[in-house]
Amino acid sequence: MNRRSKAEGILFTDQYQLTMAQLYFELGMHEKQAQFDHFFRRYPNYGAHRAGYCVNAGLASLLDWMGSVCFGKTEIELMRGMRSRTGRSLFSEAFLAWLHANGNFSGISLEAIPEGRVVHAFVPLTVVHGPLAIAQILESPLLNMLNFQTLIATKAARVRESAGDATVLEFGVRRAHGRGGNEGTRAALIGGADFSSNAGISHQLGYPPKGTHAHSMVQAFLALGMSELEAFQAYAELYPDECLLLVDTVDTLESGVPNAIRVFENLRKKGYEPVGVRLDSGDLAYLCVRTAKMLDDAGFTEASIVLSNDLDEMKILQIKAEIAREAKRYALDGDRTVGRLVYGVGTRLITSAGHSALGGVYKLAALRTGPAWEPVTKVSEDPAKTPIPGRKKVWRTFDALGRASSDILTQEDEAPDRILQGPVQDGSANSGTDRSALPLRHPWIADKRKQLAHAEIARIEPLLAQVLADGRPVCDRPDLEQIRAIRRADVESLEKGVRDLRNPQPYDVWVSQQLWTLKERLLRSMRPVGS
Amino acid sequence: MNRRSKAEGILFTDQYQLTMAQLYFELGMHEKQAQFDHFFRRYPNYGAHRAGYCVNAGLASLLDWMGSVCFGKTEIELMRGMRSRTGRSLFSEAFLAWLHANGNFSGISLEAIPEGRVVHAFVPLTVVHGPLAIAQILESPLLNMLNFQTLIATKAARVRESAGDATVLEFGVRRAHGRGGNEGTRAALIGGADFSSNAGISHQLGYPPKGTHAHSMVQAFLALGMSELEAFQAYAELYPDECLLLVDTVDTLESGVPNAIRVFENLRKKGYEPVGVRLDSGDLAYLCVRTAKMLDDAGFTEASIVLSNDLDEMKILQIKAEIAREAKRYALDGDRTVGRLVYGVGTRLITSAGHSALGGVYKLAALRTGPAWEPVTKVSEDPAKTPIPGRKKVWRTFDALGRASSDILTQEDEAPDRILQGPVQDGSANSGTDRSALPLRHPWIADKRKQLAHAEIARIEPLLAQVLADGRPVCDRPDLEQIRAIRRADVESLEKGVRDLRNPQPYDVWVSQQLWTLKERLLRSMRPVGS
Repeated sequence: MNRRSKAEGILFTDQYQLTMAQLYFELGMHEKQAQFDHFFRRYPNYGAHRAGYCVNAGLASLLDWMGSVCFGKTEIELMRGMRSRTGRSLFSEAFLAWLHANGNFSGISLEAIPEGRVVHAFVPLTVVHGPLAIAQILESPLLNMLNFQTLIATKAARVRESAGDATVLEFGVRRAHGRGGNEGTRAALIGGADFSSNAGISHQLGYPPKGTHAHSMVQAFLALGMSELEAFQAYAELYPDECLLLVDTVDTLESGVPNAIRVFENLRKKGYEPVGVRLDSGDLAYLCVRTAKMLDDAGFTEASIVLSNDLDEMKILQIKAEIAREAKRYALDGDRTVGRLVYGVGTRLITSAGHSALGGVYKLAALRTGPAWEPVTKVSEDPAKTPIPGRKKVWRTFDALGRASSDILTQEDEAPDRILQGPVQDGSANSGTDRSALPLRHPWIADKRKQLAHAEIARIEPLLAQVLADGRPVCDRPDLEQIRAIRRADVESLEKGVRDLRNPQPYDVWVSQQLWTLKERLLRSMRPVGS
Repeated sequence: MNRRSKAEGILFTDQYQLTMAQLYFELGMHEKQAQFDHFFRRYPNYGAHRAGYCVNAGLASLLDWMGSVCFGKTEIELMRGMRSRTGRSLFSEAFLAWLHANGNFSGISLEAIPEGRVVHAFVPLTVVHGPLAIAQILESPLLNMLNFQTLIATKAARVRESAGDATVLEFGVRRAHGRGGNEGTRAALIGGADFSSNAGISHQLGYPPKGTHAHSMVQAFLALGMSELEAFQAYAELYPDECLLLVDTVDTLESGVPNAIRVFENLRKKGYEPVGVRLDSGDLAYLCVRTAKMLDDAGFTEASIVLSNDLDEMKILQIKAEIAREAKRYALDGDRTVGRLVYGVGTRLITSAGHSALGGVYKLAALRTGPAWEPVTKVSEDPAKTPIPGRKKVWRTFDALGRASSDILTQEDEAPDRILQGPVQDGSANSGTDRSALPLRHPWIADKRKQLAHAEIARIEPLLAQVLADGRPVCDRPDLEQIRAIRRADVESLEKGVRDLRNPQPYDVWVSQQLWTLKERLLRSMRPVGS
């Protein structure tokens, strides 16, 4: 426990979580069981384009962190040192003693949508149950880790969408937000990148890091009185079966590609096939077509062309479209040219350029008072900001073609899967009534309703899975390849319109009529409270 | 050494740095002394507004990291396991043995512009000298740490600019990019935030973390059958001299503020003055004016009003302008109302929303060949991308009013400070010639020139300071308060136009004619190299 530095331990949270925890302690509320729901309200909007879905990520990092931190001596000592404006101790000894003994996540139970799954606005991605004071302290780190990784996995899924079947390499460590780059690389691999250049985290996750050489290698040769060709030759000699050459240090078409081809010819004589070339500047589509032509003419039809330099999902789409157009002029097959591309995606992926934070929130949804759970919500002028209260379940429906058609939030005791049984003959005069049709409401727009009919859905599945029960892991952790397979299948199951990269069609998220009624009842009971 | 996990140790770098390092090793170039310059080319552009300067940050984090990592057994083992496509070991035993023995930063010398200083495009912020292979491996982590912290310190300086003398609190840990949030908090404190809510890193840096309570506290009370007023009372009882109440959980003007005032009145009877209230939703300017009026009318003229909810420098300017307008309607003094504000700035500061990465680069500038340093550059179609070669110095000039007027890059042996001596009488017929005027060139626009005259400048100072000599620290590290003082003084010394938050006037960066000539000569010698 507590192997992390004080800045990365359990104090990696907001101060107000600690002052609130003490207040709960003073009032004897600190061990009351609370439920917090984690969800986001809006998909990333990158400016000229936006997301129609997110890819869930970060859970494993959160669980690792939760299992490795606690209020140890260091933390208690730091808190003991805190003073109010007038010099009083901010935290009492009684509270600190309780925190020292109980300040860990062994009392937390967690349900979560598995990593890699496609997730939607207003749907709880993570549901936390546990002692109020501790569940409150968990808010900030949980949001930190899940918001960021979901943001990056989502961006990576978009890059994957635009890249088609091509290899995507994550290149962003130099522009990532400090040490967050490692968590970003993990999320990028979940969302759609095949490999990363970031060596340490790649090893840690069991993926070989990828990379060849930079401009500086060629520059060093030039500075020492040698040539680009000599640099390429040296590289090919050392890495004969990994020969990928960066060809734009001097002049791509006049120097880089011709020199690369000479080196490739030598390689082939020695029995090696080159991997290809990388282009990192200039008009990538144009240079790519010219390079492809030169490689083809020299007989290197299988050599890859790696593109990099501020790529993102939109730039990739643009380059592919330009190549398709430009290829004809050089009597090249546009599809085959696109088919040899590899994308190195850096800054814009690892920082989710254009939308640099997912606005995930963590809202108190219920409190246990005696044997019962009391649902909780919050009045807001903006109805979209009123959290959906209480203990609940989350379901995803699929149509007969296997396409995800909606996510549905219900109360805990509802069984929307009954709808699959279809109309039930009840022998009464009104026999044949469709008793299994499900009345649904939009999460916050009062006049949007739907009756979900038996005929519309072929399958319905719960999305939340129990992950921790009183701090103990209760399910096997999928490895990253399994998470990637989940993501692939889930993205595949989306309708084309929802996958659209620019202006996606909205995906349906509903709450059951029963849950809606609960929210309305709670809100009515809460309007301005004089005292 | 090597106390960090493999993902945060020396392998927190790009794979290509390692493959290049091996190539240099194989060719006996690995211990050749190299110079890399770190600089950025473009100021952050947030979309509708942009920066006219940056604030340098991240150096201490980089130095800490450099001092705590090396190629230990774990790293060597991971590298030993790497295979090429055909199953060959990617790294040779000879190289791994060298790396195990020499793979640390004890041979690196570093010059840097101190943290907290205002910095400009094209000016080297950090200059690295050391063995080529090791200096190359340093590229990715150096850029990671310095790019990000400079990005956030810059954003924080802008928030500081718009907030004037008001207290600024950094609230962003929940939306930060994973663990990068800690580095971001440090940078925010350098750039202009006074305190942070992030508890762990605040303690580590020696600043008390700040925070009071969230909506969830009031919600918990409501759910347990109590009222907002009771929640406030409980809070005030526990924290009588730190009483800052979040008043928008139920209804700001109908419930929150009146309840807060009742609690404040009780506090005052007990001899405590309240800190104030926080507004976190709705039309902040309008609510602020109404709240100020209510507080004033109740006699709490000194109570602060903390604003939060997606604030950034532009939103703060807007709120201040709106308050100035709106205050009159309520017979309030607009300045005094603005003067009681405190700003809690979260997501948009910690992620530098709108411009989520500083494009700092690390370019080979020189190589030692025998006793001499050989300057290096790189041809680019875009003249702005041609690095300024060679060993150099960086100077800042100030006018008679103490305003920073330009940054100047010179060769190492130039002494532009001679210009301060003014015209020198040389006794010849042309006596009185201004021998000390300095011919300057724009960093990359060929036809922009200037003769810097004696009369224009009152002071000239070097910006780079030696930080590491062969891995040893050679200067005292300033503490964070000193760094903040540097930032304040440097921002103060900028012309008003350069500080403009929307459309800043360009700051002059020049290279000496001598340095320009060197670059031109190198470029001429480098044009397409056939072989």
